[in-house]
Parts: sequence; structure tokens; C-alpha cells
Amino acid sequence: MGNELRVGVAGLGTVGAETVRLLQASASMLERKCGRSLVVTAVSARDRHRDRGLDLDRIAWCDDARDLGGRDDVDVVVELIGGADGVARDTVEGALRRGKPVVTANKALIAHNGTVLARMAESAGIPLCFEAAVAGGVPVIKAMREALAANEISRVYGILNGTCNYILSVMRDTGRAFDDVLAEAQQLGYAEADPAFDIDGTDTAHKLAILAAIAFGTTVSFESIHVEGIRHVSPLDLEFAEELGYRIKLLGIAERQGERVQQRVRPCMVPVSAQIAQVGDVFNAVAMDSTPVGASLLYGRGAGAGPTASAVIGDLVDIAAGRQVPVFGIAGSLLRDPPVAGIDSLTGSYYLRLMVIDRPGVLADLTAVFRDERVSVEAMIQRGRDPDERVPVVLTTHETGEAAIRRSIARIRTLDSVVEEPRILPIEAI
Amino acid sequence: MGNELRVGVAGLGTVGAETVRLLQASASMLERKCGRSLVVTAVSARDRHRDRGLDLDRIAWCDDARDLGGRDDVDVVVELIGGADGVARDTVEGALRRGKPVVTANKALIAHNGTVLARMAESAGIPLCFEAAVAGGVPVIKAMREALAANEISRVYGILNGTCNYILSVMRDTGRAFDDVLAEAQQLGYAEADPAFDIDGTDTAHKLAILAAIAFGTTVSFESIHVEGIRHVSPLDLEFAEELGYRIKLLGIAERQGERVQQRVRPCMVPVSAQIAQVGDVFNAVAMDSTPVGASLLYGRGAGAGPTASAVIGDLVDIAAGRQVPVFGIAGSLLRDPPVAGIDSLTGSYYLRLMVIDRPGVLADLTAVFRDERVSVEAMIQRGRDPDERVPVVLTTHETGEAAIRRSIARIRTLDSVVEEPRILPIEAI
Repeated sequence: MGNELRVGVAGLGTVGAETVRLLQASASMLERKCGRSLVVTAVSARDRHRDRGLDLDRIAWCDDARDLGGRDDVDVVVELIGGADGVARDTVEGALRRGKPVVTANKALIAHNGTVLARMAESAGIPLCFEAAVAGGVPVIKAMREALAANEISRVYGILNGTCNYILSVMRDTGRAFDDVLAEAQQLGYAEADPAFDIDGTDTAHKLAILAAIAFGTTVSFESIHVEGIRHVSPLDLEFAEELGYRIKLLGIAERQGERVQQRVRPCMVPVSAQIAQVGDVFNAVAMDSTPVGASLLYGRGAGAGPTASAVIGDLVDIAAGRQVPVFGIAGSLLRDPPVAGIDSLTGSYYLRLMVIDRPGVLADLTAVFRDERVSVEAMIQRGRDPDERVPVVLTTHETGEAAIRRSIARIRTLDSVVEEPRILPIEAI
Repeated sequence: MGNELRVGVAGLGTVGAETVRLLQASASMLERKCGRSLVVTAVSARDRHRDRGLDLDRIAWCDDARDLGGRDDVDVVVELIGGADGVARDTVEGALRRGKPVVTANKALIAHNGTVLARMAESAGIPLCFEAAVAGGVPVIKAMREALAANEISRVYGILNGTCNYILSVMRDTGRAFDDVLAEAQQLGYAEADPAFDIDGTDTAHKLAILAAIAFGTTVSFESIHVEGIRHVSPLDLEFAEELGYRIKLLGIAERQGERVQQRVRPCMVPVSAQIAQVGDVFNAVAMDSTPVGASLLYGRGAGAGPTASAVIGDLVDIAAGRQVPVFGIAGSLLRDPPVAGIDSLTGSYYLRLMVIDRPGVLADLTAVFRDERVSVEAMIQRGRDPDERVPVVLTTHETGEAAIRRSIARIRTLDSVVEEPRILPIEAI
């Protein structure tokens, strides 16, 4: 008994149940790897009587997860309840206050309260681990905090939401519309009944905020992220992307601009030859630009019971073996609030799609706007002709400022011949 | 002074010099990350007077690297000399014997002597680290040993040699011949004056042996690897690959077959849609199939001074922070000698290219062989016609045994109409 690491698991949803199952099924392998056994001694969930296919004999049951941290038979608390506040936060804070290490898969909690929790953990001298919170099967937090410790990271970006990547991949492969593919994804269990959290980019932003803090040694700054989701991506845009040599991906991107940090989540065009363009289905990938390593990328399943439980247990193995890393890579007291660069600070190339009435003078109106805003057009596609009907016009720009593009769009929106909200997608240089 | 980690560096080639430079240039960042400073206190190299652009004032010079481990002002020895035996091995063993942790980038050393060295390190209770030995900028050893600790790994494979990947990438892009591209790679410094070690697959095999030991919890078994290099890959094969929807990559592959382990290095066809097919230029990638994570891949620069020094320092940061992992993921005493599965145990699809004299009856001869060996042909390409001249015939097979393919080739080789050594490339299911 003395040498065991005794684990209390809060939350027995699919991830919690798989974590308990895997800890039990892999007990001897895990003991070989960390030199001591990992034993689930207590669990907590809402419904005690639900059949989860687990052997919970000899495991204590807590009706209230907040009690786990106070138990004498629990050395470490695994929080798999979810949510930025409420029971999840109370459970984590309670455990840290009692000097017990915490492992969590809760991205919302870390994105909103990570800095405070990191300082709590550090003043108690104990680990707070959340590899499972960002792209579960992809060990990006370990890679950034430990393996790349000698590097200055200038940019971290990725496909961080499997639901969005699945929807965009199916839309591209089949030409079907967003709503249609979303409905199917919901039936398949790849999207939630309320999909807003995923498809509007919030989930990606939570993960990005965590990655950025580690990459740049800053406090977690979820609020400063510019967030756009994928609702407005149309089959037409995916078709044009293909024609122009791009794929459309929902990317979270955090980058240094001198002392400032710019963070954004939005659908982007990426060159089809880029490694990240090839990431299909529900897969995740996180890429980094760092010195001296240069470009690198990690790819794998980001969500689901197995990959998430794997990440949770990876953290538990580190704790069992006595391996500890500062929560965001450096001591909490050294984390600075990042000076924020807004979205208008960006420069780059852009894709614009307009729906216009096909009649003489339309292009003259458009090009006059770009001339006034000093936006240089690289290519224009007006496919087909259909006098006096709606046709798409697609433009790509040379390197220009985001602010100039936004001003251009504000003016273009008011043109008589433009009959739909213009769509902009940045073309990311990756 | 008391809290410093004092580093002795053996070998000041490009990697050694960059390691010293980076430790000095990033001193304050590294101190923030591990809570103590990393200080180079002693170095050793052959030529004391060569200008390496380094500030070696206040750093002790050892004419003999083997003396580093015995110095009172050295806490950890970094071995960057290279070679499976000789000074490199003496330096590492000497340090371990004195209870000093070792970091090395020396894949030959670990591939040939890793098991013995691991047991030495473990009986002394100290770390032996070699993240830099396999795909430097790609933290695959950390990922497998730590992050994926909860996983059963069934296969690990990768593009582990940048020189070969560069040559194959340029051959594909330009249609130029192997010798021509190799000569250019030598001029560019991407290939050694004596390229055999890279292009004949030995370097890949060294790295594969290390990955396999960690993946499967076995002793290192370099000798059991089936190794073929890329000398025989022709522009014609690269063209046919493209036509058939494949890329040709030199892969190291290690996989479990029940209790047995199969390891091989050879040029393979991989589907162009596979993530690893997109790895171009000098980049490396390592992919794993594991349960419960599923497919995952890590991508980045494998060699060069910067990525290798980054990996060395990543290991030093772990040591400075007191983080230790069993050398091959589990205690040395638990490592088993892997029962070996030979190359003939494999089944799969194959690509065969024959140069034949274009005359009646050739195909009948070939198909008779396949019928006798029960090899099922999936597709055949005979491009162009040129009676009584040499023409290529390409065949792909359905799933069949490697042994049957080898027997078929042995017979085909003896046919009168076959005028060149037949070429076989496995089509890997990835």
C-alpha cells in the first residue's frame, strides 16, 4: 500500500470511465513504467447507479466531487467534470489547497482560471497537469514545456477541434452544405446537440489560450483572442480553395509580434502542400515555429475517451514517478500579462468572395475600393457569366493589412451590386 | 555555484559547438525553465586551437574526453563525439561509472550498446538520455516513454534520415537520377563524402533499433534489422509510384507480430494521402500506432546543429529539474530480448518493376511464375511498345507473402526476356 499512488477520479462520463478502466486494465504495464502502482481508490459522479461497465468494488464513492481532495486515501485528484467554474473548479482548488496534485482534461477551467490555479499549485509545490486539455492524443504540452525548453517559440498554431475538422473535411469531400454535414456529425456523435461551443470556435480558443501561455511564458489570456467559427464556410469557398491550391481549416494561431502576442481563431486558407493541410477527419495537429528547431508538427486524435484517458494517465505516470514541471513552463511568479496585438495588427494575403449581380461596372466599383485602400489584387476569378443574376467573384490579394481589408469590405458591403455578406478568409503563410 | 548544473561537453563539432553556444545564449531562459542554471564548465575536442566562434574562457579544456566524467566541476557529461565504441563509449561508461548522468546524441552507441549502458545507468540510479540520437527536433523518445505511457504501441515507423529523404524528394521533383542528386547533396552538405552510412540505411537502422526497444520494452536489437538502402531507387520507379498514387520513402518500421518483433529498413511505397508521404526535403517524421491513442505522428527537422543541440539541452533541462525516466521506458532488468520475426514473415502488397525485351510470350512467362507461387496480381502497367527492345513492366500484387514474392523474383530473374535485376518495393499499409 505504502508505495501506491492513490487516485481519486471526479467525473465518470466517457473519459472518466475510460480512465478508470484503462488504469485497471493496464495496471501491470503502468507499474513497470513508473515503478509503483496507480490505484483508483475513490470516484465521484452524479449517478451512482448507472452501469458504466466498470468494476467499482473496493473503490470509495463520493457523492460530492469536492470531497475527493480531503480524503486520506487519495493522493492525487483527476478532474473530468468540465466547466470553467462550479464543481470542477471547487474540486481542483480544494485538492490544491490540501496539497494534492491535480490532473485535469478541463480546457475551459485552465483557459479561464489557469494562471490562478498555477500559482496555487506552485505555492503548494505540487503539479497541476492538463495534457489532456489540449489535443489529447498529441503530447503538445509536454513537447513545448519540456522537449523544446531550449527553444524560443515564435508561433504555435493548430487544428484543435475535431468536430470542425470533420465537418470541413466532409464538406470538401462531398460538396455538401454546412448545416447538412453538421446534422450528420450530430447523429454520428461527432458534434454535440448544442454545437455552438465547437463550431463557433470557443473550444479551439480555450486550447489556444493554454498553448500560447506555455509557448510565450505569459499568463493565460483567453479574453484577448479574436474568435470566428466555421458557420459561414460554404461549399463554394471550399471549391475555390481547391482551385487556388488551398484547403480551408479552422486554425487557432498564436504568435509573437515583438513583445506583443497575437491570438486568433478563424477559418483559414492553407497551402495544400502544407503538412497541416493534410490533417483530415477528426484528427488534430499542432505546429510550432521555434528557434533553433524550426518547423515542427504533432498529429493525432485530439478527443474521444481513449486519447483523452491516455493523456490523463501520462500525467499520472509523471506524478507517480516524481517528475514535475512548472505549470506553464516557468514559475507562476514569472508569468507576465501579454501585451496584446489586435487582429488589425496582422498583415498577409486574403481570399475574398463576393456575390454580385453580373452587370457592367461591378468590377470597376470593386477595384476602385481596393485602389483607395491600397490593397493589391493578386488574382480574380469570375466563373461563368449570367447577366443580371447573382454570380460569385473571388479575389486574392497580395500582402496587405488586415485593417485595410476590413475597411475595403465595409465599403464593398454597401455597393448596390453586392448582394450577400462578403466572405473573407486569410491565406496563412505556413 | 551550489545550485548550478555543471556540464562537461565531449566533442565540439557543429553539434557540440552549437550546444555550448545555445547553453550560453539561452542561459537566463533555461534558468527560468528549470529553476537553476546550466553552466558549461569543461569541454573536450581534438583541436584546442580551432576557432569555433565560442567563448571558452572560464571553461576548462580536457585533451581527453574520458577525463570529463572524473572532474569535480562536472555534474553531467554530454557526449557528442560519435561512434559505437572507442572514445565515445569510454567517455559515457566512465561518466556512468562515476555516477554522473550522461546525455548523448550518439545513435550508433545506443543502437549497439544501449542495453548495457542502460543497465549501468540504472544500477547507478542516474539518467542516460538520448533524445538527440533519434530525429533531433522531433521529441519522439519523450513522447513514447512518457506521454504515451498508457499505450500499447503496436508499430512505430518513420522517415529517420534526412539525407535519404532529401535525395528521394529531389529525385521525385526533378526526375534526376540517384547518383546525380547524391553528388549535389554532397556539395550542399546534406550528404557525407562517404554517404554509405546514410544511403545504405545503417543510420536509419540505428535509430529504428532505439525506437523499437522503447516501443516494445525490449533490449536493443540492431543486428536483427533487415536493412536495404535507396541506391537502387530509380526515377522510373518514382514516376510509376506517382502514377499509382504512391510516394517512395525510406522507412524504418518496427512492429509487433504477437510476441515477436519485426524490424526493417527499406524504401517503400506509401499512399500519397498518408501524412508521412507529405514529409519532404530533409525533414523527419515518426509515426506510431498505439492503443488507445491510435495513429499519431511527429514531424520536424531530424538533424543539423540546431535541432540536435535543442534535443541535448531538453535532456539537460530534465536532468537539472530532477526528472528521470527509465532509460528504455521500463527498468533495464525488465527488458526482454525480443523474439525476432524475419522479413519472410511479412505479408502485404508489392510493387515489382521488370525490364523485359518486348516480345510475345513475356507476360505468359511472368504470369506463370505468379500462378505457381500463388501471387495474385492486382495491376499491370506496360507503358509504350517497342518490339525487341527493353521496356519496363510494372506489376502490383494483392496481399501476399514476402516469401512468395522473393521466390517469384528468384525465378523471374532467370527468364531470358528479363534483362535487368527486378526491383521490388513493398506497398506499406499506412
